[in-house]
Amino acid sequence: MSAAPAALADRYAAVRALSSALVAPLSDADATIQSMDDASPAKWHLAHTTWFFETFVLRDHVAGYRLFDERWPFLFNSYYEAEGQRHARPRRGMLSRPTLDEVHAYRAAVDHAIFEAIPILSPEAQALIALGCQHEQQHQELLLTDMLHHFSVNPLAPAVWPAAAKVPVAVPGPIGWIQGADGMVTIGSAGQPSPHPADFAFDCEGPRHQALLTPHALADRTVTNGEWAAFIADGGYADPRHWLSDGWAWVQANRIGAPLYWQQIDGVWTRFGLDGRRPIDPAAPVTHVSFFEADAYAGWAGARLPTEFEWEAAAAGADPRSGNQLDAAGPVEPRPSTSGPAWFGDVWEWTGSAYRPYPGFRAVEGAVGEYNGKFMSGQCVLRGGSCATPRGHVRASYRNFFYPHQRWQFTGVRLAKDL
Amino acid sequence: MSAAPAALADRYAAVRALSSALVAPLSDADATIQSMDDASPAKWHLAHTTWFFETFVLRDHVAGYRLFDERWPFLFNSYYEAEGQRHARPRRGMLSRPTLDEVHAYRAAVDHAIFEAIPILSPEAQALIALGCQHEQQHQELLLTDMLHHFSVNPLAPAVWPAAAKVPVAVPGPIGWIQGADGMVTIGSAGQPSPHPADFAFDCEGPRHQALLTPHALADRTVTNGEWAAFIADGGYADPRHWLSDGWAWVQANRIGAPLYWQQIDGVWTRFGLDGRRPIDPAAPVTHVSFFEADAYAGWAGARLPTEFEWEAAAAGADPRSGNQLDAAGPVEPRPSTSGPAWFGDVWEWTGSAYRPYPGFRAVEGAVGEYNGKFMSGQCVLRGGSCATPRGHVRASYRNFFYPHQRWQFTGVRLAKDL
Amino acid sequence: MSAAPAALADRYAAVRALSSALVAPLSDADATIQSMDDASPAKWHLAHTTWFFETFVLRDHVAGYRLFDERWPFLFNSYYEAEGQRHARPRRGMLSRPTLDEVHAYRAAVDHAIFEAIPILSPEAQALIALGCQHEQQHQELLLTDMLHHFSVNPLAPAVWPAAAKVPVAVPGPIGWIQGADGMVTIGSAGQPSPHPADFAFDCEGPRHQALLTPHALADRTVTNGEWAAFIADGGYADPRHWLSDGWAWVQANRIGAPLYWQQIDGVWTRFGLDGRRPIDPAAPVTHVSFFEADAYAGWAGARLPTEFEWEAAAAGADPRSGNQLDAAGPVEPRPSTSGPAWFGDVWEWTGSAYRPYPGFRAVEGAVGEYNGKFMSGQCVLRGGSCATPRGHVRASYRNFFYPHQRWQFTGVRLAKDL
Amino acid sequence: MSAAPAALADRYAAVRALSSALVAPLSDADATIQSMDDASPAKWHLAHTTWFFETFVLRDHVAGYRLFDERWPFLFNSYYEAEGQRHARPRRGMLSRPTLDEVHAYRAAVDHAIFEAIPILSPEAQALIALGCQHEQQHQELLLTDMLHHFSVNPLAPAVWPAAAKVPVAVPGPIGWIQGADGMVTIGSAGQPSPHPADFAFDCEGPRHQALLTPHALADRTVTNGEWAAFIADGGYADPRHWLSDGWAWVQANRIGAPLYWQQIDGVWTRFGLDGRRPIDPAAPVTHVSFFEADAYAGWAGARLPTEFEWEAAAAGADPRSGNQLDAAGPVEPRPSTSGPAWFGDVWEWTGSAYRPYPGFRAVEGAVGEYNGKFMSGQCVLRGGSCATPRGHVRASYRNFFYPHQRWQFTGVRLAKDL
Repeated sequence: MSAAPAALADRYAAVRALSSALVAPLSDADATIQSMDDASPAKWHLAHTTWFFETFVLRDHVAGYRLFDERWPFLFNSYYEAEGQRHARPRRGMLSRPTLDEVHAYRAAVDHAIFEAIPILSPEAQALIALGCQHEQQHQELLLTDMLHHFSVNPLAPAVWPAAAKVPVAVPGPIGWIQGADGMVTIGSAGQPSPHPADFAFDCEGPRHQALLTPHALADRTVTNGEWAAFIADGGYADPRHWLSDGWAWVQANRIGAPLYWQQIDGVWTRFGLDGRRPIDPAAPVTHVSFFEADAYAGWAGARLPTEFEWEAAAAGADPRSGNQLDAAGPVEPRPSTSGPAWFGDVWEWTGSAYRPYPGFRAVEGAVGEYNGKFMSGQCVLRGGSCATPRGHVRASYRNFFYPHQRWQFTGVRLAKDL
Repeated sequence: MSAAPAALADRYAAVRALSSALVAPLSDADATIQSMDDASPAKWHLAHTTWFFETFVLRDHVAGYRLFDERWPFLFNSYYEAEGQRHARPRRGMLSRPTLDEVHAYRAAVDHAIFEAIPILSPEAQALIALGCQHEQQHQELLLTDMLHHFSVNPLAPAVWPAAAKVPVAVPGPIGWIQGADGMVTIGSAGQPSPHPADFAFDCEGPRHQALLTPHALADRTVTNGEWAAFIADGGYADPRHWLSDGWAWVQANRIGAPLYWQQIDGVWTRFGLDGRRPIDPAAPVTHVSFFEADAYAGWAGARLPTEFEWEAAAAGADPRSGNQLDAAGPVEPRPSTSGPAWFGDVWEWTGSAYRPYPGFRAVEGAVGEYNGKFMSGQCVLRGGSCATPRGHVRASYRNFFYPHQRWQFTGVRLAKDL
Repeated sequence: MSAAPAALADRYAAVRALSSALVAPLSDADATIQSMDDASPAKWHLAHTTWFFETFVLRDHVAGYRLFDERWPFLFNSYYEAEGQRHARPRRGMLSRPTLDEVHAYRAAVDHAIFEAIPILSPEAQALIALGCQHEQQHQELLLTDMLHHFSVNPLAPAVWPAAAKVPVAVPGPIGWIQGADGMVTIGSAGQPSPHPADFAFDCEGPRHQALLTPHALADRTVTNGEWAAFIADGGYADPRHWLSDGWAWVQANRIGAPLYWQQIDGVWTRFGLDGRRPIDPAAPVTHVSFFEADAYAGWAGARLPTEFEWEAAAAGADPRSGNQLDAAGPVEPRPSTSGPAWFGDVWEWTGSAYRPYPGFRAVEGAVGEYNGKFMSGQCVLRGGSCATPRGHVRASYRNFFYPHQRWQFTGVRLAKDL
Repeated sequence: MSAAPAALADRYAAVRALSSALVAPLSDADATIQSMDDASPAKWHLAHTTWFFETFVLRDHVAGYRLFDERWPFLFNSYYEAEGQRHARPRRGMLSRPTLDEVHAYRAAVDHAIFEAIPILSPEAQALIALGCQHEQQHQELLLTDMLHHFSVNPLAPAVWPAAAKVPVAVPGPIGWIQGADGMVTIGSAGQPSPHPADFAFDCEGPRHQALLTPHALADRTVTNGEWAAFIADGGYADPRHWLSDGWAWVQANRIGAPLYWQQIDGVWTRFGLDGRRPIDPAAPVTHVSFFEADAYAGWAGARLPTEFEWEAAAAGADPRSGNQLDAAGPVEPRPSTSGPAWFGDVWEWTGSAYRPYPGFRAVEGAVGEYNGKFMSGQCVLRGGSCATPRGHVRASYRNFFYPHQRWQFTGVRLAKDL
């Protein structure tokens, strides 16, 4: 069943507008730089998300559509093997041409064609537009985190946006523990790439299935910057007993001693953010820590990380649109909690679960089948979304995934323990 | 409760004797070479297993024991952080001194001290001897696979042992499917590092717990060399659709096109083994394939890999001492099956499960607590033992683990499918 | 003795204006990218040359001068150890801030201060301005060659400027040989960093001294693209006998098979230039070849490279302002010769001489003493200037130097032989 | 004109016997290890030098000769491209087979065939035997220095030989300066690969030619360990002003702070030698320093390195068989001088000259033409031989060459200055 075309068009327009708003403070040069292999230039995100719509909707479903530029698919395909050869990922920062203006023109042209097409597209093609909107939301988050990384390596430490006004919040008291369900729980989503946001789910969130939980409790909040500073002060980064073997090798090879973007200046821990370099807020959730760090911290604290199933069972009843998530352009960052347990927003929470297929999982056919399944090795599941996740994008069943050493996303830690 | 000291001494003697037998064909030079970072010299295995007994039994539990050589713990500690600084792993092949004879003398001296101590040791220390025997059995397998790798990089392709006499066996017919249990099953072992082999289990095999299986079937045998050659002939290594993203990157970066040790000579596929280079046997189980290859093959074949729980449930009733396992020195290799389903021996079977802790897992205290738990990231579980696993070492609950790209062990593939 | 201040100011103004003209076609993003470690962003060249004047003239010789921005010396110092810590060279492409406009403002501010200061500066400080002009001319050439490299790695192959109109020129006949002087010749310059361009020389060009030449002849022109294509067609890149051992290793490791920027398309050799990708001109001097390639070609041709002394003795009487050199912004490239022997312009000519100090050489005191002497290991001398060398910059005694594998400069080959 | 066959046979026998004596203390395992890419296993040196005789004398000049083993040329060719494919240099340490005994048998078989052939060989083939003897002498030096490196990386620091008895020698007084010839001098050798040792020279030592020297003086001895310790104490390794740019990068990347094999233990500088680790002798010549270190030291000392021509002119009258050179197996090392200027032995002296061809140089035809010429880029000339150079091997015209960062040879420093 198809969505009302008007609703889909509205949704498409809103998503596309947010991308534009996020890059508004960037110059062409800002939008061109790639600061590490894992990150992409802002311009590339803008173009790649557009290529997705152009390729899988316009080229494949709109008769007579002519590509905006025949040379660009080579540049803006990310990893879709079925779409043929592509520009090497670590070379994305070599492209001063096309310019940011040309990319904006590309976006406008594709938007125009999409708006014209929506009323006459098949439900299948409409579902691809909905998928493209979800896809672009994912890239909005990457765009922000890549931007943050890029400016962090500039010795001038530029602020993208002025700092938001902040109300000081007291450092929270000790963690409280919430007893989780045990026994059989239902996990995953029966949703699918659908034009209706409410029904939408990625293929990796299903099939919906039963999972078995053992008695456990989850912390009622994530670990704070202040708690993390205590871990550092206690020599947490210098004691191999806390660390997984691969994590300890990573700490030593990269001389890791604090979360990414932290720097001690005159005895004060600071962090770099989209509003520049500022002292850490001890009450705010720690972020930009790797799975290795999260796991080591949990061990040091006498706890463990939750499994993704424990997390999902606990969060199932919460409103996924609640919490500190991305609504508009501005200096997103995790904020101290002032209320009860928040499952969504602020920081992605590392779970102890490897990113592997659910029972009965099958990747969908065709190029978009490369979306999730082929990444199911070596990565860890994160849950809950972050301050950089567009509101409305995340769900209780939503599975994000990164390698255990990666930490340029807004990644944090919630503790768990066996009962 | 302690084992009868005499039984423990017999067991210790038998394990130690097999290690000596395995290196009998090796010169000091053969025993000195390290052919890659993942492998260790034969001499190092002999010394390291001895260091384990010397350190955790003699030094810690025998009053007045004096180290054989105070400088050697630095050389022969593997990865026990609690035991202090140690020689860098990739430099193990730089040690022509101590000589093989000196290492044999070290073994004799430690053996003598162990035999003297056994009757008077505490049950705890006796359990450490039993653990040390299990540990040495693991290194016997590594010793064989490292030896194989070492000789494989020598352009002269030397044979360690003459080839065993072989009776030709017909290529097996198509795979048959065995329906697995579904619903709740009990997984893991209640065993622990124990002087009684029958009660012994590594910490990572527990706690014993319930797991939930979905309807599925397992293949009644592992994939053969002949079937693998068909995968190659069908372009299996050249088509990214079969591969995990990390696997495809590995194939391309390393120009992988066949199992390790395979080489096509005048149109004939050969493999290198401990008996030199010979044509592959199409009826024998394929071996020396990585998880990436196993997963790609399974996808190509329209199947998937079993989970470790499916495997354990299926193998639970079989005799773990059955099958083609290591009994004595000689040119071990997987052999064609001539009977029904064999769960143990021949090749370790890659599962689709990540090596992570079972619910409630805790590493044991002390240095031997570094044995398993700290490796629980980034690796995949293998089950069932191989032709190089000492008979009596493996169990249905036994969890082996390697990184998804590794393939110098005797690793093979059993298919599974959803029902 | 000081130059007339007005002449110095005119010279300064002309040099600075040419830099601005060269970057006129570049966007901020174009000027920000660093396409390899050896190259620098255009913006960096503009700022670094300005930093040179600001630091060594204004800061050191103008009382009360305040730095334009105190954080910028860290960014724009190139390699002057005496000036303290600096931004890592391979990270120069990470700086979208400061913007190109801010760098232009920096240039304007420093220009203003220099013009104000010139009339009252000491002769020593005036000499530093003259040195700074020479320094900026060197960076003008690098700016062009770095720009060329940057656009060459963009799959869109953008042209910086439209192609110049060309008159077809016949492919030249065989090389003629010019007998050189033999016996004792005088080499080097008695000049020094001087405000008078006619007296100017870099420290490495002196002391003036005697050198001894053996009977030899030099080719009357450089090797052409057509001749180079014959070398390729004859298997020149595939036969180790032509190559120095290091050169052969370089060819194999980097899969070198043609000059940099050459690409065979449908059987036609093309090259990338500042006017985009176009067929090679067989009559034009070959360029973008390394010392290794130059040496291999010479051996293949039964000749050798000239020594720097043979070259200097031969070129001593020629007008160094003659030939195809840089006069204004535009798509510089080597052009076919239509007249007699040209010693200057078109392509830098690799000599067989290692870049080492002349007898009695001493680096000057202070930071500018790091200009030449510390680079006297591992590099080869090139002579004669190129199409990208600002006219008036080069002399017969001028010694340029690069590593034997480098070839992103306009580097070519003149043959020599023993008589 | 041919040498008396008996003299050639005697010479051959003596050279071959010394190689055997040098490896007498080594086990097969000792002789198998390759401790870095630049070094080769002792066994490889024994076999490679034998391969040289087998290939260029027996195979090419003895009708009906059959190779000892047809698979070995692949293993023991070093870098002769004309001899076809060969085993990768960094993999030489992977060869436990052939064994040391098999290599000794190879040596015996080739020796037997050479002795039989000598009386009937052509003068050209006899010259190749003489060249092979020179070649083997070079490898005797490498064998010692590679052996030293190999044992230095063993944490047990084994001594190959017991220390020689030493008579304490007073630390020498300040350097005295010897004024050199200036003006025209004759350089190089008119010799050639000849069966007569007195006429022998490598191709790179010629042609004999005139060179021009400027007024200068050379130190009357090499720099001592004591002087070097003062350089370290003065912060010599921490001040970039002393260093060539490439040298400074090398110091920083490799954290160089002392000569190779030096280690400070409880405040005392020690060095590792073939007799184990012992305190440095402040009166002995410093050794195992790179060109970069030699050049930095010279600058720090207000001097420079000699050119190879200055050195040769000064040493021309001295007896090249004098000094501390290799006569027999034992713990070679530089020794304090007790007499006047010694030009030969103790340590190779870095010159400031790049290793480039003399005027009119041509490599000889055929495979042995790869001996010298193809290495004429990027390397520096050393003169005078060392304590590890077989007595009788070196001459005033002898040119050794290494890359500027290499220092595992016995390399030292003699200062020079302009007058």
